[in-house]
This record gives sequence, structure tokens and C-alpha cells, in this order.
Amino acid sequence: MNDGSILLYVGGDTPAQWLPVFAERYPRENVLWYSDDLADDALSRVEFAVVWAPGEALFSRIPNVKALFSLGAGVDHITQSGVSLPDVPVVRYVNDDLTNAMSEWIVLQCLIHLRQHLAYAEQARARIWRILEQPGADEVRVGIMGLGVLGQDASRKLMTMGFAVSGWSRTEKTVPGVQTFHGNDQLDAFLAQTDILVSLLPHTRETEGLIDAALLRKLARDGALGGPFLVNAGRGKTQKDDEIASCLANGTLKGASLDVFQTEPLPPGHPLWSAPNLVISPHAAAWSKRESVARYVMGQIARFREGKPLQNTIDRDQGY
Amino acid sequence: MNDGSILLYVGGDTPAQWLPVFAERYPRENVLWYSDDLADDALSRVEFAVVWAPGEALFSRIPNVKALFSLGAGVDHITQSGVSLPDVPVVRYVNDDLTNAMSEWIVLQCLIHLRQHLAYAEQARARIWRILEQPGADEVRVGIMGLGVLGQDASRKLMTMGFAVSGWSRTEKTVPGVQTFHGNDQLDAFLAQTDILVSLLPHTRETEGLIDAALLRKLARDGALGGPFLVNAGRGKTQKDDEIASCLANGTLKGASLDVFQTEPLPPGHPLWSAPNLVISPHAAAWSKRESVARYVMGQIARFREGKPLQNTIDRDQGY
Repeated sequence: MNDGSILLYVGGDTPAQWLPVFAERYPRENVLWYSDDLADDALSRVEFAVVWAPGEALFSRIPNVKALFSLGAGVDHITQSGVSLPDVPVVRYVNDDLTNAMSEWIVLQCLIHLRQHLAYAEQARARIWRILEQPGADEVRVGIMGLGVLGQDASRKLMTMGFAVSGWSRTEKTVPGVQTFHGNDQLDAFLAQTDILVSLLPHTRETEGLIDAALLRKLARDGALGGPFLVNAGRGKTQKDDEIASCLANGTLKGASLDVFQTEPLPPGHPLWSAPNLVISPHAAAWSKRESVARYVMGQIARFREGKPLQNTIDRDQGY
Repeated sequence: MNDGSILLYVGGDTPAQWLPVFAERYPRENVLWYSDDLADDALSRVEFAVVWAPGEALFSRIPNVKALFSLGAGVDHITQSGVSLPDVPVVRYVNDDLTNAMSEWIVLQCLIHLRQHLAYAEQARARIWRILEQPGADEVRVGIMGLGVLGQDASRKLMTMGFAVSGWSRTEKTVPGVQTFHGNDQLDAFLAQTDILVSLLPHTRETEGLIDAALLRKLARDGALGGPFLVNAGRGKTQKDDEIASCLANGTLKGASLDVFQTEPLPPGHPLWSAPNLVISPHAAAWSKRESVARYVMGQIARFREGKPLQNTIDRDQGY
């Protein structure tokens, strides 16, 4: 038995969903499920915390924690929670399953808009048989904001499907086959040549509310699809829901697919529910499988105990 | 000016759509649009005929034709028309644009079913926010019937998206990364390990009505999607529309995407229009662009005049 224990705090889930996953695979580890009733003594022995949307009380009660593991690719549920974080490494969840699921969803949404699936579905409901003119993928420019692991995988798969792909990131990056832009100075140039804007941006101070009407008006309007589209698979707080609804209504956007929203679940009365040419997905583009999370976390802890550095840690200043 | 002329017979189109495409690019060629009024003398000088759904009279009136060009990847509109064909090569249309468009549509449909797009769209109409459990593409087996140029391109792109791909063809074929089956003897084994059946089969005597309830009942029912799916991008005459509608209603199929139908347009009263979990597409999965067709046909004619063999000719006995 290792001395330090592992604490799980997964907002929205139950201990029955998680404790057996660890117990079956790692019976020698002491794994706890957080509750307010847990004794300070037990919490003082917590060395690692695996968290999703932790409450305010948590971090003040685990003074000896050595690393935090986020359950998602994003860490804004920790860093933007208003809770003061202990000064220890924060590890993002990076996993092929999650990456592949995200790329599936992004390629699906780009193809839905390219192939006018929503218009054909509407026709089918009215029993109308009519072929719609359209370009090939090679005539359509997809621009990806955020060129980390997820953005690079999506780029590769979109290019295989024939799309012309460019990318934008905060700092300069090189991705094979992708025309890249970086920094605030090159954002407008990037947008001006983008027909389908795909966002994988994290939620940070800099990206909060970035995707608004002013930004969407800068997208290309000379493209083969006859107008621009937005696909957001990143974080809802990077967009302005009301302005996206207006852009869909007034034609600034020809269509969109949103997996994320400023407020989740999207409130029943929100105008986005009835916006035209919009695919709404309930933050379901990609997910973390519990078995994969346990394997990933325990792999990292094993590294840590051997004195090796943790992987996929965030830059605290950048917030991701 | 070359001696022999080129005859266009494109059912459903008009001369204004086609003659300028040839005239602008190949002004030295004598290109005719077929009509019943054309003099026998003019028709006797026809060396090449470019056809889609030709009428019965055509072939008896062009005794000196040296080759026929189909406007599509399929040739059943010629070979299955009941018209007796002249004994000359029949050339299929093969083109990257058409191949890419077909693969876009097939990958789109497989992702729609994998990611439960139809169920999410239904939820969104009811303003329901609920995440549905689902497998990754790597847990889903796509089986492609027909491993020609189109089937091989679709295989490659489906594998990039993570799907496990197998294929079945009449004669033995080898495709990198694809588990292949062939012939009638291996059809049941192929079906038994297929979660999403994708058909790209041509319409021949052997394939007519092949995709019926008996065949669909042989698909895998132990897969990660909880039941099998059908995607037909080939030819409508290879399937039995009524039996597919029944299979969707009684759960033999969990869903389907059909671009083709026994009778096209699909009649307004057909039960498929109201079948559950079905994507209906009006034979729009892939198309031949007129400019690309003209370039392809004239490239082949140039080869022929130089004494080189025509490419992509059909086997008259097999009918494709």
C-alpha cells in the first residue's frame, strides 16, 4: 500500500461510477471519494486529486496534495472556478479515445454543412426529391482555432476528406499541410480566408467571449458555400450565444454546429434552440471514459513516484 | 477537323447545358446533340457517343460508332435498358471529383449513425439536453460491398476516421488495411461481422434485388451500435425498397441512409418516406461535372486515335 491516497471529486458523478473502476485495477491504492464529511486526517494524506468542477472547499482541505488531474482536455472547470488553486502541477487529460471522438464530431459537422444535410433532411420531411448544387470539399476552406493535440488530429482527418485546412493559434505552430497563422495580429487574415470556422480554443482570460458577432463578420463571404459556418467544439465561454443566434438569423452565418454554450445545459428559452441551420449537441462531442482516465492517471502517478516529470501539465499563466 | 463526330445523348439534360462545354474547349471537334430529327447521313459519321439513359432508337442509328462513354460510374442505364448494344467498348466515367464526392457522402452517413445525429436532432427539436452513450469508431465495423475505385477510396477515408473496415467483392481483391471477402461463398461470413453495411454495388443481373430482408437479417447483431445499419450509395435496383422499410420498422435494421431507390424519384406515397432512423438522399451522393466529363471523354478519344487502349471499359459479360 502506498502512503499517499488518491482523492476523486467528480462533479455530477457518483462514487459507484468511479471507485470500482480504480479498485478492480489498482487494489493496492487508497482511493477516496470526496465528501464534506471526510475527516481532515484522511484528507491530509491525499497526495493526488482527480477532479471535475471541484467545489470551493476542496483545495483548502488537501494541504499535502502534490498534483491535480483534470478529467477533461480543458482545465477551465478548475482554473476559472474562482477557487484559489494550490501551487502544484495541473495535468490535462489527453487520450486517443477523446481525441478521436472529437475529430469524429468535427468531421461530421463539416460534412453535414458541406453536403447540406439539414436542407436535405428538411426536404425529406416534406417528401421533396430535389438535388441541391454544391461544391466539393476541396473547394471549401476550414480554419481551425487551436492547434494542440485535438486541432492537429482534426486537421489531418479534414485534409483526408479533401478540405483545405488552415489553423490559428496563440503562439506560432507548424502543422504538415496546414497554412498556419498565429497571434492577434494574424487573426483577421486567418478569418478572412475561412469558410468553416472550427474552434477548439480553451477558456482563458484571453479567449473569453472571443467568438462574437464582430469576429464572425470577418469570416470569408466569397467562398464556395455562399457564406460562412461556425463549428464550436471547444468551450462555451469563448463564445457569445446571443450574438451567434443573431448571426444565424441575419445571415452573417449560413449555419453552425455548437457542442458548447455559455450556460450549460442551454436554457429552454434560449433563441439558439430555434435558430436556422444549427446543429445543437449537448456537450457530447468527446468524453473521457472512466477506464481510460484511471489508466492515464495511474500511469502519470507511477511516473511521478519514479521521479519523472508529469506530462500534459498546464502553464498556469496561460491558463491551459 | 477530325472526320468522325461525337454524339451527345444525355437523358434529362438540354443541349445548352452541354454543347458549349465542348465547343469552348474543343472547337475543332464536331459535336452533335442527338434528336430524332438528325439525318441518317450525319449519324452515320458518329464515331463516339456520350450517353446517359439513351432511348431505344439511338444505337440502331449510329452503325459506325467505335466506343460508348457512360456519364456515370455505373453503366446500367445502358446495359440494363433493354436496348441491344453495339459490339464496341463501353467506357465508365471515373474521376476524382466523383470519387471524392461519393466518399464524402459515405463517411458522412457512417458518422451520422455512429454519432446518433438523428437522435440528437430529434432531442434538439424537443429542446432536450441529454448525452447519449456511444462507442468510438474503432469499435464499429463497416463492411463495404464493391471494392472498385469508389470502394477503395471510401475504405481509406473510413479507416482514417477510425472505423474497422472490411470489404466484399465478386472476385478476390486486396486492399491495404481491409479484411476482404469475395464471392457468394463468403458473403454470409462478411455480413456476420458487419455493423454498417455500405453498398457500392453496380446493377447487374447478379446484384438485382440482392439487398433484401434475408440479407439484412444476416448482418451482425452483437456490435457496439446495438444493431446493424445500411448505407446504399450504389444502385437502387440492387435493393428491395419495401423490405428495407419493413426492416427499419421491425428493428432488423437500426437505421439506414439511402441515396438510391428501386424507383427514382421515390414515389410520394412510399413507406420509406416515414421510416424511422432513415436518411433519404435524392441520388445526390456523387455527380459528374460537365467540364470534367468533357475533359475525360476527350482524353480517352485522344488515346483511342493514337491507337492506345481505352481505359475503364466494362466487361460485357459481367455488366460492369
